[in-house]
Amino acid sequence: MLSTILTTGGAGFIGSHTVLELLNAGHNVICIDNECNAYHEKNELLPESLKRVEEITGKNVTYYNVDIRDKNALSSVFKKHKIDCVIHFAALKAVGESCRLPLQYYQNNITGTSVLLEVMTENQVFNFVYSSSATVYGDPIFLPITEEHPTGACTNPYGKSKYFTEEILKDLCVSDNRWNVISLRYFNPVGAHKSGKIGEDPNGEPNNLMPYISQVAVGKRTLLRIFGNDYATEDGTGVRDYIHIVDLAQGHLSALNKLIEGGLRGFAVYNLGTGKGYSVLDMVKNFSTACGIDIPYEFTSRRDGDIAACYASTEKAEKELGWKAKYGIKEMCEDTWRWQKNNPNGFAALKSDL
Amino acid sequence: MLSTILTTGGAGFIGSHTVLELLNAGHNVICIDNECNAYHEKNELLPESLKRVEEITGKNVTYYNVDIRDKNALSSVFKKHKIDCVIHFAALKAVGESCRLPLQYYQNNITGTSVLLEVMTENQVFNFVYSSSATVYGDPIFLPITEEHPTGACTNPYGKSKYFTEEILKDLCVSDNRWNVISLRYFNPVGAHKSGKIGEDPNGEPNNLMPYISQVAVGKRTLLRIFGNDYATEDGTGVRDYIHIVDLAQGHLSALNKLIEGGLRGFAVYNLGTGKGYSVLDMVKNFSTACGIDIPYEFTSRRDGDIAACYASTEKAEKELGWKAKYGIKEMCEDTWRWQKNNPNGFAALKSDL
Repeated sequence: MLSTILTTGGAGFIGSHTVLELLNAGHNVICIDNECNAYHEKNELLPESLKRVEEITGKNVTYYNVDIRDKNALSSVFKKHKIDCVIHFAALKAVGESCRLPLQYYQNNITGTSVLLEVMTENQVFNFVYSSSATVYGDPIFLPITEEHPTGACTNPYGKSKYFTEEILKDLCVSDNRWNVISLRYFNPVGAHKSGKIGEDPNGEPNNLMPYISQVAVGKRTLLRIFGNDYATEDGTGVRDYIHIVDLAQGHLSALNKLIEGGLRGFAVYNLGTGKGYSVLDMVKNFSTACGIDIPYEFTSRRDGDIAACYASTEKAEKELGWKAKYGIKEMCEDTWRWQKNNPNGFAALKSDL
Repeated sequence: MLSTILTTGGAGFIGSHTVLELLNAGHNVICIDNECNAYHEKNELLPESLKRVEEITGKNVTYYNVDIRDKNALSSVFKKHKIDCVIHFAALKAVGESCRLPLQYYQNNITGTSVLLEVMTENQVFNFVYSSSATVYGDPIFLPITEEHPTGACTNPYGKSKYFTEEILKDLCVSDNRWNVISLRYFNPVGAHKSGKIGEDPNGEPNNLMPYISQVAVGKRTLLRIFGNDYATEDGTGVRDYIHIVDLAQGHLSALNKLIEGGLRGFAVYNLGTGKGYSVLDMVKNFSTACGIDIPYEFTSRRDGDIAACYASTEKAEKELGWKAKYGIKEMCEDTWRWQKNNPNGFAALKSDL
């Protein structure tokens, strides 16, 4: 069923890759973004990521520079378009920054979401896909992590904002049976579209491993620092469930299909991961192979709040969404490298943030 | 140290009694309220509760009809007055309603608080007393409940909104050491000021026991329904820690004094209760004695989410705030009755909401 989908934060890493898959599937896509983390060339209509999505797909995105906390601006988008479903990516997402600026995180992530839900209600739009995170599980008490794993033991404002928002969504679905909400708990998205034209483009020093490794490979950073080699894992470094961004984007399509086909009533949550854990050293080794360049690294002390290992049970998503990750670590590394090599400075060809 | 105190929700039950104590202590009080739950006679400057506070104290309150979610209106109050501390009462507070209207609760209670904190930051005001609730403890795992009891297992949006806000306040204090925040976890506030001129004035059917009993006593309701008589308590009815509203109000003064004397850095939480638990039947019996009227009641089934017993450890507040409740169950009932008898329809002399 082809639908009109509003994506918030659609210019970001996960947003832009999902917009691409939505367009390829034939959906009509409306995109809003406040561009707090997106490169936008002067005199262009679209942020660079979405411009490239249009190039890759040969299709058009309807775009508005709107902040979800701006109720009037948001309402006007809902007045202009008959929206069937909202996929809500817009959020601040850096753990360390969230500890320094908690109020900004709560305002963007919780207040922003609640304004969006209010405007949706006013416009009778009740299908919602939410960008949650495995961080809501806190330090895992069992592995692989199923959706039944307890949530809430988050140690930073970013994680809490995701957990609180899930609770708000649950309460909303209990209070009003018109709502159908799927919360997708992402594990560790990496990789890039095969075209090498869109990918992860962090501002300043990357917070995540994969962009860091690829910036070392491309010569933008000299050395990878690995936080802790004394975890109770095979090689002592942290183990995570990395998932290819194209798989993740397709997970959103599966969730969307479930919603628009009426296959869900109320609130449901699904892990999006591969179910496989890789260590930091695994990733370094595989990335080196993919790019043919040795990645220099050194070990440093553990980072506050980091956990030893975390990987998903993928059974529920497979069974109920009919979705399963297709790409392995090889594609994750090769596709990241293609993007990085072709775009050493990310979307801003001339930008230098070294 | 005499200070200028902004109270949000100052026209409410707890707000108005605290404003009274603040004025009596010589503080300069600025009051804001959105009047969503306050009676305001036409052509009067103040909501009726605050008008009566002025009568009782012979002092003036500076008042603005402002909603805390309205950033511009809130900012203008901070521009007009040099505020030393904010006591933040404004919130929606009905558990049942919160299950029906979760988004309104989260927006009033969380978004509202976060707008307030943002405006405070912009105006360099960093002393904050927060109205929290024993509900953040969920179903107690030990009694009496100390401040170290785990929090977060709340089953309704009202309770969650209080818990989430406490977490936001904690994160804020960790991120920025200019903040000094005291969260006061109220047990069950009852009673009224000795004057009989101000008291609890719920809209419609009361959610709480004491106003219900007193409305039966005054003839506004025919019968008290008691939810459950098969709890594991002495007489089978629920046991709570009722605290006289004047004691509670004075607890705010103690917290305020600690803040403005610089006796606290960062975030602290205190229970405000008496430490004594009374059952529903205890309250009915004591109220009957106070008013000289038999209170007819019947038992009905337990209410979802209600717990058997809940009472505070009061040691921490006693030790660190130098505060202890002075009034017992007798005064709670007598003072409630004086208020109810003199004001059978609450603040609106002619109002009939039967």
